[in-house]
Amino acid sequence: MLLDNHPDRTDLEARGQDMMELLQRLWPVYRTLAGPGIRETLRILGEQVGGLTISHAATGARALDWIVPEEWDVRSAHIETPDGRRICDFKRNNLHVVGYSTAVDASMTLAELQPHLYSLTDQPDAIPYVTSYYQRTWGFCLTHRERAALQDGTYRVHIDSSHAEGSLDYGQLVLPGRSQQEILFSTYCCHPAMANNELSGPVLAVALAQWLSLRPDRRYTYRFVFGPEMIGSAALLEAQGDHLRSSVLAAFNLTCVGDERDWSFLPSRAGDSYTDRLARHVLRHVVGEYRSYRWHDRGSDESMYCAPGIDIPMVSIMRSKYGEYPEYHTSLDVPERVVTAHGLAESFALYRILIQALEADCIPRSTVLGEPQLGRRGLYPQTSIKGSTASVKDMLDLISHSDGQTRLLDIADRCDKPMWAYTADLDRLVAAGVLQR
Amino acid sequence: MLLDNHPDRTDLEARGQDMMELLQRLWPVYRTLAGPGIRETLRILGEQVGGLTISHAATGARALDWIVPEEWDVRSAHIETPDGRRICDFKRNNLHVVGYSTAVDASMTLAELQPHLYSLTDQPDAIPYVTSYYQRTWGFCLTHRERAALQDGTYRVHIDSSHAEGSLDYGQLVLPGRSQQEILFSTYCCHPAMANNELSGPVLAVALAQWLSLRPDRRYTYRFVFGPEMIGSAALLEAQGDHLRSSVLAAFNLTCVGDERDWSFLPSRAGDSYTDRLARHVLRHVVGEYRSYRWHDRGSDESMYCAPGIDIPMVSIMRSKYGEYPEYHTSLDVPERVVTAHGLAESFALYRILIQALEADCIPRSTVLGEPQLGRRGLYPQTSIKGSTASVKDMLDLISHSDGQTRLLDIADRCDKPMWAYTADLDRLVAAGVLQR
Amino acid sequence: MLLDNHPDRTDLEARGQDMMELLQRLWPVYRTLAGPGIRETLRILGEQVGGLTISHAATGARALDWIVPEEWDVRSAHIETPDGRRICDFKRNNLHVVGYSTAVDASMTLAELQPHLYSLTDQPDAIPYVTSYYQRTWGFCLTHRERAALQDGTYRVHIDSSHAEGSLDYGQLVLPGRSQQEILFSTYCCHPAMANNELSGPVLAVALAQWLSLRPDRRYTYRFVFGPEMIGSAALLEAQGDHLRSSVLAAFNLTCVGDERDWSFLPSRAGDSYTDRLARHVLRHVVGEYRSYRWHDRGSDESMYCAPGIDIPMVSIMRSKYGEYPEYHTSLDVPERVVTAHGLAESFALYRILIQALEADCIPRSTVLGEPQLGRRGLYPQTSIKGSTASVKDMLDLISHSDGQTRLLDIADRCDKPMWAYTADLDRLVAAGVLQR
Repeated sequence: MLLDNHPDRTDLEARGQDMMELLQRLWPVYRTLAGPGIRETLRILGEQVGGLTISHAATGARALDWIVPEEWDVRSAHIETPDGRRICDFKRNNLHVVGYSTAVDASMTLAELQPHLYSLTDQPDAIPYVTSYYQRTWGFCLTHRERAALQDGTYRVHIDSSHAEGSLDYGQLVLPGRSQQEILFSTYCCHPAMANNELSGPVLAVALAQWLSLRPDRRYTYRFVFGPEMIGSAALLEAQGDHLRSSVLAAFNLTCVGDERDWSFLPSRAGDSYTDRLARHVLRHVVGEYRSYRWHDRGSDESMYCAPGIDIPMVSIMRSKYGEYPEYHTSLDVPERVVTAHGLAESFALYRILIQALEADCIPRSTVLGEPQLGRRGLYPQTSIKGSTASVKDMLDLISHSDGQTRLLDIADRCDKPMWAYTADLDRLVAAGVLQR
Repeated sequence: MLLDNHPDRTDLEARGQDMMELLQRLWPVYRTLAGPGIRETLRILGEQVGGLTISHAATGARALDWIVPEEWDVRSAHIETPDGRRICDFKRNNLHVVGYSTAVDASMTLAELQPHLYSLTDQPDAIPYVTSYYQRTWGFCLTHRERAALQDGTYRVHIDSSHAEGSLDYGQLVLPGRSQQEILFSTYCCHPAMANNELSGPVLAVALAQWLSLRPDRRYTYRFVFGPEMIGSAALLEAQGDHLRSSVLAAFNLTCVGDERDWSFLPSRAGDSYTDRLARHVLRHVVGEYRSYRWHDRGSDESMYCAPGIDIPMVSIMRSKYGEYPEYHTSLDVPERVVTAHGLAESFALYRILIQALEADCIPRSTVLGEPQLGRRGLYPQTSIKGSTASVKDMLDLISHSDGQTRLLDIADRCDKPMWAYTADLDRLVAAGVLQR
Repeated sequence: MLLDNHPDRTDLEARGQDMMELLQRLWPVYRTLAGPGIRETLRILGEQVGGLTISHAATGARALDWIVPEEWDVRSAHIETPDGRRICDFKRNNLHVVGYSTAVDASMTLAELQPHLYSLTDQPDAIPYVTSYYQRTWGFCLTHRERAALQDGTYRVHIDSSHAEGSLDYGQLVLPGRSQQEILFSTYCCHPAMANNELSGPVLAVALAQWLSLRPDRRYTYRFVFGPEMIGSAALLEAQGDHLRSSVLAAFNLTCVGDERDWSFLPSRAGDSYTDRLARHVLRHVVGEYRSYRWHDRGSDESMYCAPGIDIPMVSIMRSKYGEYPEYHTSLDVPERVVTAHGLAESFALYRILIQALEADCIPRSTVLGEPQLGRRGLYPQTSIKGSTASVKDMLDLISHSDGQTRLLDIADRCDKPMWAYTADLDRLVAAGVLQR
């Protein structure tokens, strides 16, 4: 719907295709919290955008209250059934192994195996995505249908994995603007094959960064962060928290932005920050109806950024919110079934409007006392007949609220119009010397 | 309805008749922005009230951001049709000529004439009111029915008018009170034959000024301003803006106060000033239901008074709001059809209540600690039986909110009663020494 | 309902029985504003709780704006009808005599008697409760049915009563806590046989004081005040107003707490004080629906405590509010018909929760920057699978709002949960060093 009749529809659809191609390229890389997968992911992302810098936090280092875990690598994992079939093969679907599983090579009864198996009774055809980052154990994930069919007998379990000292890696791309105030986009890349609740975020971030890098005159500095969820943010804040706290004007968590279902909004902890108001304004005027969640419903990096003492106002504009759609954290969260090129294009279009609104927002101030005489500046209908001033109503509203204290966003909200309804008038009035930004 | 069962009904109806007579006397005077018509109008108004002083702003002078235009005078104007009929004759209806038309005396085809004709397709029997104050052109206004019947051929157009250096004139009447704080009533007189959207305002202003001048002990100083819309206010603010900004407590734009349709309210830019709250309080308790407009719907002098940097809180209590009723700015906005003596009387009655509320408002303060013992002052039922205190409930509410910080208006709003429900109790409690104003 | 499935149901019902027994013991004592009845009442109450101290204000002394009246005592009162029957006998029902009646011993016609008789036409079987504390007169109260049946003839009226210099008496019980901040419970004992609108209050106060006195470690100091309505509060505030104004955090008027009908809430004058918010929180989460009155509907000691300049925030959580239930201030406000042991037990249970909430409330503060790593403290599910964090959602909400500025009450309100949903989590997080109170 958002793209219907959009003047840039063809370009936007093409950009959606590009995003989908990048998503497909990142799909097979096996990502987890720390290890080779995330490094390979950052390498591919770096090819798409210039200037991506990678940071490392060493195993055992503190990241705020958190401790950086060891890296983990897995080379193969499967189970051999009593009748010799190989099931839960990591090579067939990388969700089969529980993330951060210890190595194992053993035989056991089905009863002994069961506590290490994970499946979803209410989604019998989905393989769940399971991890155990911070406690040493091992396990396999499979569909409930396959699990229910397992026969008694001796099973052979095999996981060739290793934990090792190393680093937790995250990437940042900074596009400087005229102002040192920053707009932060955070997205995570620590999940294996998850389309909406992972890869939609990084590919949207890349598309936005590419578009912004071509914008000749950026007002704000834009920072894109790619890293593991939660601990990646903790590591970044440990290293650069003071700078971010004083520089970030608005922050967005890019996640679940690839499907075509309802739009969703998750507010910051404060709930009414500039970021919240701007995001709601864009949603209201661009998509109209959307699901409005509460801070209580959060479940991602905003917990770190909005925590007391850090207080960076981060919000999420999503399609189907994580935890709320059936495919979430299962083998069903795949391209096409959930994420589409069209869905990605719509998210790109919406965030582009959001960025344009951010760049255009200002505190206009009238340079004259009283309502200005627009007629002698050629900005007012010369002949007065009833109804003749309707065309200049927006302009007059803009002037009358330009008291040097009210943001354009708030002026637009008071008049119940989108900010961009005033952009052309603002330009003309500034050119005419009647308003200052 | 407002006058039904009103104790002063006969007097109020008589006052309505007086207002209507003055309106009829002002009706034939041809008013425009600057010129002899407005001077004649101010002369007639000055006969009604003592002490009206006239100010002048010279052509070319600045009035805030505006430039005072030349005066304009028109002596005759008409069109001669190919078959020799005289139409659009200014002498038959002074709306036929576009205000501030340049002189013309020429022959032309109908096609050449058409761009100079103004009519309303959706009101084919109404002559529109059209002006072109700030751009030199000429034109005629006529009913759409008459225009549609025009035949091809040669038309002779004639306008005997002249622009000349001169002055923009406005009148002020100041009725001093004990306080130098001012209540400002602004009304405009720059339209020709317009009953509701012009003359109802000046005649109500005259009636209020007459009533106030007989009030022995005015608390506030009252200022009435009569002048051309917008530029008149600009000229006044240019000359006396500093004084008005520091003195005016509440300001009202008197316009469209003569018909008997729905009551309307247009707020100030701030929207919640004392003036706004007081006006809404009076409307709620006197007329009950009324149309509540937004600042966005404004269209008169409040744009000048409420502009950033001036910030004089001006509101309008109207009947049918300008721009919203079908007769607005057409030859249909005439006495009897739109404005009636009864309608004018109702507006007078309402504004009189408003002024009485302004005069009575205060910040009461209890002189005793704790609830006072009203019984020993003869203000409380001596015998207690269930229900016996109902009669003193308002008095107890008044006392309990008299914390020396809350206006009577706000006390009344908290108790959801009209201010005047407390006036007698307040007097008794002040006399008993329990409250101070 | 409140006691259904309550773990302490048996204990609470037993406590309700105890309260009812005390009520029955206080029932026959004839109380009025000042005199032997209130002293006997205070003596009986003192037997129930240790440490009740009695204060006296002498006749003629000032109590804020009030003047302490004489004591009054009545020994006998009745009317003899023309046919020799004795009616309105004080010994049969102590409501028959108007409180503070002067002594009288006279014969008169029925017409002469009528102005001294009080009955309720709309409740023909109820004897009204009538007093005339501050004006000297005499009178009798009777059912309207009995009054209507009176025959013409000579009536002999007899009241053996006396006014005398003496004192106005009130009792206080203070249970010290760790903090000198006080929680005040005020209840009155100046009415004769009135079950809900009098005795339910003192017996609930006694039960709460007994329970609190056994609580080993009180955070706040608790003050219970028993005295005549209004003037008792005035006398207390005259004597100890400065101390109370600076010490009282929350105040409650215990009245009408014995029946089983709808719950009611009367706010303080401020309306949104901590006391108001806490009381509404408890009502919303414990009883759900309740009648919400306005300050305008008050009618008891809160008028004195909340008066400007005193501003002690006092609220009332009641069942059937005074003035609103049919038996109010009549001979129908009796035990069993209105007040029950079960109703008293429910009020006790609700106020106990309120006190527990007061004691538990605090301003939690996170000791770590960012969201803490709960996993390494054993407070977080070790294995992540969708849905696994639901069990720790409350804990995460609590942490995320622990900014050192927000009360637990307000955190709970933001999350739309009762405060006590967080108590166990708060204890665990404080023990883990993640939060501080």
